Amino acid sequence: MDRGSFDHWLDAADRRHSADTTAERSPEALFGVTRARSEMLCDALGVATLAELAAHPYVLRAQSIHQRAQAIGHDLGPGVAWSQLFADAPLASYQQNPEQFRLDFGPVYYRGRLDGTARVLIVGQDPAPNELIGHRAFVGASGQRIQAFLRRIGMTHDYLMVNTFIYPVFGQFNGRLRQLSREGDILDYRNRMFDYIDANNPIDVIIAAGAAAQDAVARWQGSVNHIVHNIAHPSARDPDLVADTWNAALLAIRDNLTPQTGAQLDDSLFGSPMTDEDYEPIPRYDLPFGMPEWHGVGSHASRGRLSSGHTDHTRIIWEST
Amino acid sequence: MDRGSFDHWLDAADRRHSADTTAERSPEALFGVTRARSEMLCDALGVATLAELAAHPYVLRAQSIHQRAQAIGHDLGPGVAWSQLFADAPLASYQQNPEQFRLDFGPVYYRGRLDGTARVLIVGQDPAPNELIGHRAFVGASGQRIQAFLRRIGMTHDYLMVNTFIYPVFGQFNGRLRQLSREGDILDYRNRMFDYIDANNPIDVIIAAGAAAQDAVARWQGSVNHIVHNIAHPSARDPDLVADTWNAALLAIRDNLTPQTGAQLDDSLFGSPMTDEDYEPIPRYDLPFGMPEWHGVGSHASRGRLSSGHTDHTRIIWEST
Repeated sequence: MDRGSFDHWLDAADRRHSADTTAERSPEALFGVTRARSEMLCDALGVATLAELAAHPYVLRAQSIHQRAQAIGHDLGPGVAWSQLFADAPLASYQQNPEQFRLDFGPVYYRGRLDGTARVLIVGQDPAPNELIGHRAFVGASGQRIQAFLRRIGMTHDYLMVNTFIYPVFGQFNGRLRQLSREGDILDYRNRMFDYIDANNPIDVIIAAGAAAQDAVARWQGSVNHIVHNIAHPSARDPDLVADTWNAALLAIRDNLTPQTGAQLDDSLFGSPMTDEDYEPIPRYDLPFGMPEWHGVGSHASRGRLSSGHTDHTRIIWEST
Repeated sequence: MDRGSFDHWLDAADRRHSADTTAERSPEALFGVTRARSEMLCDALGVATLAELAAHPYVLRAQSIHQRAQAIGHDLGPGVAWSQLFADAPLASYQQNPEQFRLDFGPVYYRGRLDGTARVLIVGQDPAPNELIGHRAFVGASGQRIQAFLRRIGMTHDYLMVNTFIYPVFGQFNGRLRQLSREGDILDYRNRMFDYIDANNPIDVIIAAGAAAQDAVARWQGSVNHIVHNIAHPSARDPDLVADTWNAALLAIRDNLTPQTGAQLDDSLFGSPMTDEDYEPIPRYDLPFGMPEWHGVGSHASRGRLSSGHTDHTRIIWEST
């Protein structure tokens, strides 16, 4: 004898099956659901199976609204559809180029809304140690500047951030690295992801931070249908270049993007060099469950090499203070 | 002018409201849902609002089944109900006792199923660095031994693990630490969590690993309704004590617990000392999205102190190899 994980939810006749088989049953298989109620539910939503009920857009939308209303303090991560897309990422194409990519702690895929409510798409270059620890893009100092940008355009939630590369890179965006970005699986997958984001979100504006991101957006056919703002990468060395390009984008976007309901108005601009006002903590609802409250405020992670006996590993040092 | 995050999903009359207000609307507020369909859906499920649709047990059960069928490779973390319970954790009671608890990188709440499919409840003592990095309980060497225990009773999914303390402790379970476990908010909250787990899962057996866990379970009134197996903590120093108590529990549970459908049969026992066969990698579906594939196999995190200028911080060193 054995027992299916979901048997206690199911009518006796539907027990002891795999999840695969159960997912293809009608909702009537659930204990307590009569045939009449199951048919009513299926007719109302146009579904036939538990899997279709589970993934129905109306159900998922109701849950996004409910989760926002309940102010869940963490990001739930990708559900079924996004998980499948992330699972298709061309990890092998990265792994074949260990001289270009730091493969040990990644990849990092995104930060922000995966539920179809993103109006601003932000594209960066690659994750750094704060992102590797946080499992989300744009979590460290650069991300906190981007978050201040979002605050200044009245966006507290309605954004999604991805990078050109899902692994950290070695060196600058030129030569071999640029070539890898422009060809094969890395290009194709990134464009497929852009297409999916575009098809499932009301994207009003795209912000490309730095040369790699600008190149990535330019090589995506769908970008011609969008307003794209190119800004200097937040970690660029010239503070005037950052302030000038960021403020130009800020002013242009403010004139055209409707702020979120409930967002505080903030008419300020970025300074050169930036001050504390030009950083904004990463919202807790953008980070995974269990992340300490200080990660995403300041910098807490760095690469370190320590000698420990005869080995010398690549490590990340995570500091609480 | 401003714009609600969900406006593109809603009928014109229902736009520009907060998520709170929107969540209390009927499903008819969703663009594309007619009054007739909304009424059919509400009648079928006995709901009146989007929030009730989002949180309906049948919907959540269908999603658990669907997610398992799709083999999502990460743990989605707590949904609305569990998030609210975790948010009530008595962090202040821990923070008031910094001589007993390591407060810098925690807390850690659980590992395993939060969807109501847990048949085995495992209680441990406290999280260690591998757990702090993994944001889940029982992820390091001790957790990998527990996972081997679960493999040997035919449980690949249907378990939930929690600890006596949600922060790492200093020292042994005696004196002040034992007193803190037995009184006030820490006791009350833990018992409330046990009650909630018990009320929402078909718990067949409880395994208490180590003195702290055994004391915690004994002080929970609901434990009298359950079979409780006390085993030595997996990191206990005496290998014979571990093997003896673990194998006794293993044999007793095998006789009484129906294995999961699809689980491989494994009739072996734990060795003294344990060998590689006595460890099992932490399943990827128990870890948050974005965790590297090697975390949960072997040990990768430790506390370290480095001198860096004039400060000496408490740090966690995370090593990929």
